[in-house]
Amino acid sequence: MNHEPILIGIDAGGTSTRALLTDDRGQCLGYGVGGRGNPISAGPDLAAEGVLGAVRAALAIAGRELSEVSHVVAAMAGMRASGDDAWLRDRLVAEGFTGVLSFEADLLATYFSGSAADFGYALVSGTGACVIRVRAGRIDGTGDGLGWLLGDRGSGFWIGHSIARAAVQDLDGTGPRTALTDRVLAHHGLARTVQRREGRPDELERLVGLLYASPPIELAGLAPLAFEESDAVASGILAEAGIHLADTLSAVLAGPGPLVVGGSVLSRTGPVREAFLARLGERAEGLELRPVGDGAVGAAMLAVRAAGGTPDAAILDRLTVSISAFR
Amino acid sequence: MNHEPILIGIDAGGTSTRALLTDDRGQCLGYGVGGRGNPISAGPDLAAEGVLGAVRAALAIAGRELSEVSHVVAAMAGMRASGDDAWLRDRLVAEGFTGVLSFEADLLATYFSGSAADFGYALVSGTGACVIRVRAGRIDGTGDGLGWLLGDRGSGFWIGHSIARAAVQDLDGTGPRTALTDRVLAHHGLARTVQRREGRPDELERLVGLLYASPPIELAGLAPLAFEESDAVASGILAEAGIHLADTLSAVLAGPGPLVVGGSVLSRTGPVREAFLARLGERAEGLELRPVGDGAVGAAMLAVRAAGGTPDAAILDRLTVSISAFR
Repeated sequence: MNHEPILIGIDAGGTSTRALLTDDRGQCLGYGVGGRGNPISAGPDLAAEGVLGAVRAALAIAGRELSEVSHVVAAMAGMRASGDDAWLRDRLVAEGFTGVLSFEADLLATYFSGSAADFGYALVSGTGACVIRVRAGRIDGTGDGLGWLLGDRGSGFWIGHSIARAAVQDLDGTGPRTALTDRVLAHHGLARTVQRREGRPDELERLVGLLYASPPIELAGLAPLAFEESDAVASGILAEAGIHLADTLSAVLAGPGPLVVGGSVLSRTGPVREAFLARLGERAEGLELRPVGDGAVGAAMLAVRAAGGTPDAAILDRLTVSISAFR
Repeated sequence: MNHEPILIGIDAGGTSTRALLTDDRGQCLGYGVGGRGNPISAGPDLAAEGVLGAVRAALAIAGRELSEVSHVVAAMAGMRASGDDAWLRDRLVAEGFTGVLSFEADLLATYFSGSAADFGYALVSGTGACVIRVRAGRIDGTGDGLGWLLGDRGSGFWIGHSIARAAVQDLDGTGPRTALTDRVLAHHGLARTVQRREGRPDELERLVGLLYASPPIELAGLAPLAFEESDAVASGILAEAGIHLADTLSAVLAGPGPLVVGGSVLSRTGPVREAFLARLGERAEGLELRPVGDGAVGAAMLAVRAAGGTPDAAILDRLTVSISAFR
């Protein structure tokens, strides 16, 4: 029997969950993926299933049991403040877990997926958009992350929403023509018509009906269309997204450091990134951009810390290299 | 028994419904108010109750029966295209109605509440925002009215949404300070605290939670706060609303004419109106602004037309004067 401490870092997201099984030196022993893991968006039962699914898969690959795990760190949005962890703790205990469960912010896991430095920044622009400043290994400043209705400026939702509005305003005559319109219509299975009602094309009424029939957050699904076009409207939306992300980062900037970048909007090179850097100007000096795919490695770094270890650059490197054998 | 044709014009809205009983010369015989009358937002049963309530009240004041009414015109948003009028027709018939029921757009009723001219414009900015161009007494151009998620730029929702975003960005540090923030906090029963979590004030988290707990459209309720403040952020929001409304109007402008104005945003003098006129510049020449309170008179004008009459300026004047005895 192996008595070295084994740890699990969980990156629980709104659409999927990743679990990384590691020893306390950052050697990845197993890795698993599960379903939706955020209890706020998915509900506690479904979220627990998503997390457990990822955990079971990681343990199975390693041939280990949950009873051997000393620390589980679950990184997810919005769970740190709630304090009520029974939805997950009870399920883990039922499967033999006797160790310590703790929660961390998803953005802190993103940060530690790309940096082991005590000071730096993480900026995520996926469906939502949020920035944190990390000091002494803890979050001490936050910008945006205010959700689709109140913030998330420069996020995938923000881009998709801007695309939808540009398309309906084009069809409506209150906005400029854009090639995005045909893409948005095609995305919704609609074609242009010559039918007009009270001066409006029929496809506008149909498109508006379809867009209101889905939850607003699904507008984020339109975001890729802006990256496939290069007319003035599409380019303008992407440039504005970059400017918003730069302004959000600027609100927490307090000196040079690593800037870990999560989410697909800013991770890729192109118009958003260019506008982002142009807007930052001199403030971009001393920021080292480090795109990361997800927060699994960072959650494992936080599990090492929870177990009393020091998640330094060597452990980050080891986790980053050793996880690659599993995914 | 009186054999002159009597008509009912109904202005059915999302929060209340007005019914105007008139003869074919525009003499108001009765007037009643009922509850929510739009079947799309209230559901058909509740909407029918709202409409019937207004109709019964108008008939009761005049001492008349529904069986005596030859034409009912119901003006409401979104009902012209649907064609399915059983939700209201069946209820009217059950109370003795044997005449002709027809539907018109709410904005056309707004227009005819302020003008009898064949050509002109109606611009409504209440919770939503929409403009129509009227030609030969029919709508032949429409701008915006695309709803809170996709349009309604310059509406009460748009203003309230801008206020909410300004407040959370102030608290978040990603936007400028504004006196609106204390008003928004007070509006939600919150006070400022010195508690910070990850660099954020506790009241931000509470405010965001409360704002997401209600349907987005309720943000329109914050709009009055901008009219009570005069700092740069509040003034900027109102000026931008005026610019949006001017741009929406510009999309359908095709020469001088009456501009009937509905909804509280542009009806009052002040920063929105000033920015609106400044943005229009020379294009405002030849536009006669005519604020109206609701669409009841216009719905009655449309009922006169439905009955084969000509709703001219004399009938508009008679309706406008004679209704005042009832409300």
